[in-house]
Amino acid sequence: MKVVQCVPNFSDGCNLETVEKIVSVLRNQPGFKLLSVEPDASYNRTVVTLLGDPEAMIEPLLAMVEKTIELIDLNHHQGEHPRMGAIDVIPFVPIQNIKMKECVSYAKRLGQALYERFGLPVFLYEEAATDEQRVNLADIRKGEFEGMKTKIKNPLWHPDFGKPEIHPTAGAVAVGARMPLIAYNISLNTDNKEIAQNIAKTIRHSSGGLRYIKAGAVEIKEKGIVQVTMNITNYQKNSIYRVFEMVKMEATRYGVSVIGSEIVGMIPLEALTQSMEYYLGLSNLSVDKVLEYHLIKKDE
Amino acid sequence: MKVVQCVPNFSDGCNLETVEKIVSVLRNQPGFKLLSVEPDASYNRTVVTLLGDPEAMIEPLLAMVEKTIELIDLNHHQGEHPRMGAIDVIPFVPIQNIKMKECVSYAKRLGQALYERFGLPVFLYEEAATDEQRVNLADIRKGEFEGMKTKIKNPLWHPDFGKPEIHPTAGAVAVGARMPLIAYNISLNTDNKEIAQNIAKTIRHSSGGLRYIKAGAVEIKEKGIVQVTMNITNYQKNSIYRVFEMVKMEATRYGVSVIGSEIVGMIPLEALTQSMEYYLGLSNLSVDKVLEYHLIKKDE
Repeated sequence: MKVVQCVPNFSDGCNLETVEKIVSVLRNQPGFKLLSVEPDASYNRTVVTLLGDPEAMIEPLLAMVEKTIELIDLNHHQGEHPRMGAIDVIPFVPIQNIKMKECVSYAKRLGQALYERFGLPVFLYEEAATDEQRVNLADIRKGEFEGMKTKIKNPLWHPDFGKPEIHPTAGAVAVGARMPLIAYNISLNTDNKEIAQNIAKTIRHSSGGLRYIKAGAVEIKEKGIVQVTMNITNYQKNSIYRVFEMVKMEATRYGVSVIGSEIVGMIPLEALTQSMEYYLGLSNLSVDKVLEYHLIKKDE
Repeated sequence: MKVVQCVPNFSDGCNLETVEKIVSVLRNQPGFKLLSVEPDASYNRTVVTLLGDPEAMIEPLLAMVEKTIELIDLNHHQGEHPRMGAIDVIPFVPIQNIKMKECVSYAKRLGQALYERFGLPVFLYEEAATDEQRVNLADIRKGEFEGMKTKIKNPLWHPDFGKPEIHPTAGAVAVGARMPLIAYNISLNTDNKEIAQNIAKTIRHSSGGLRYIKAGAVEIKEKGIVQVTMNITNYQKNSIYRVFEMVKMEATRYGVSVIGSEIVGMIPLEALTQSMEYYLGLSNLSVDKVLEYHLIKKDE
């Protein structure tokens, strides 16, 4: 059986009733599992993780998007995480018995249906991108919902599916295919967002830091702290431990400390074994050493 | 399908041709996988890990024991690891869809066959033990091959299967059922075995240290170093990171450093997530966050 991970992000992390109405159409469906639902109030955003047969996911995903359009109005949305749509992004990630090319096909099929059924303008990104400047989600989303009203009229930013105008309440959506990434947040014991911003700049690739790291700063107001929030887009080349230790090191410049970290969504087993190798000085820890790894049914 | 882990240890880790002859009967068998073969020259011992249906393992295990008896003579055996038999110990560990009680039955069935076919005296240990003083493998094995010649004649140490006399070349074997354990070695940058012995005493339960830790010292002559070698018999109660950090801390007393560590055999996923939680200050890392965990087929 083909297995993909699909990680839709939608723009409500505060109203848990709304969140439940949106994700309920994904529960108990044949062919895939709803692995996690992670609403974040500061981000005002929810990350959903599905695992299973992409064919089985398409219709439930469309039903889910229908709910987000019905229940979320981006004209009244505020949150720490950048966003351009009620349903903001839907990536497909190849996991088992499926090639990236097929994930791209599923992204395109879903994208086309999103426009045809709901009039949502759709940008294809990462491996599904139709143009080099659309590979990076952050470039597409720059300006966010508010800026997209005019940005989308620029021929350079006409959507891949749909007319060059945003949906009045649901904005626009990015649909794509990509390798697994790790969404990772590191908390600092300060409420000074500038410090998190400075550290984010130091570690991220776009400002001269580590390759495969995208990073920004967010305030977690209810806890009175800030976070360096990041995506590790290639965890085989840059491990979690390296980012964590680098943020710890930089934090000392500002007299603040790292007080913890969190993984949003799923983490691939190999990312765990890499970091454990570092911390315990292990020379022989591969995924093969992990008992459960051998219980996975593989078609070979 | 019932899944057990079976971890036979036999007393040759130097002669790789012999090792291969012994394990070859376990390769490409239906119903279970040969996950790993780990010969250690200093220990002069090989740890084998099987995973699968215990029913399918019994005959191949008997064939393997037949080979060890044929090829290993303990009268000429030297190594850093305590041992009492050519085939030294065979534990069954319940992994999926099987209860400990059933693992005990398989241990007894195998034990009886080992005596009937090869005349090996068999001690049942851990969950399969017939007496409280035989629960702990170290108590059974105390005196090793050389001491067992007379120890076994003491009615307190008559074997569970077989006559009270050792096999002249293959000694005696312990067969049992137990929870998963982690076999873990920590290397120090010294050749002074006393230091490793002192640290082992500090951390192990029997001398007043951490519960569920059995530890000793070994010399790795070819590397000019010593190791604290241990079994973590309940990794849910005592995590790897705690033992590792404690050994590091104790090592400073002697002016030596921990230069690395190694896991022998398999490690359960939960043992990884626990230690990663510690090192990265993660509050939410359970096995459920690991992508591959959801690819395991479970009968529920």
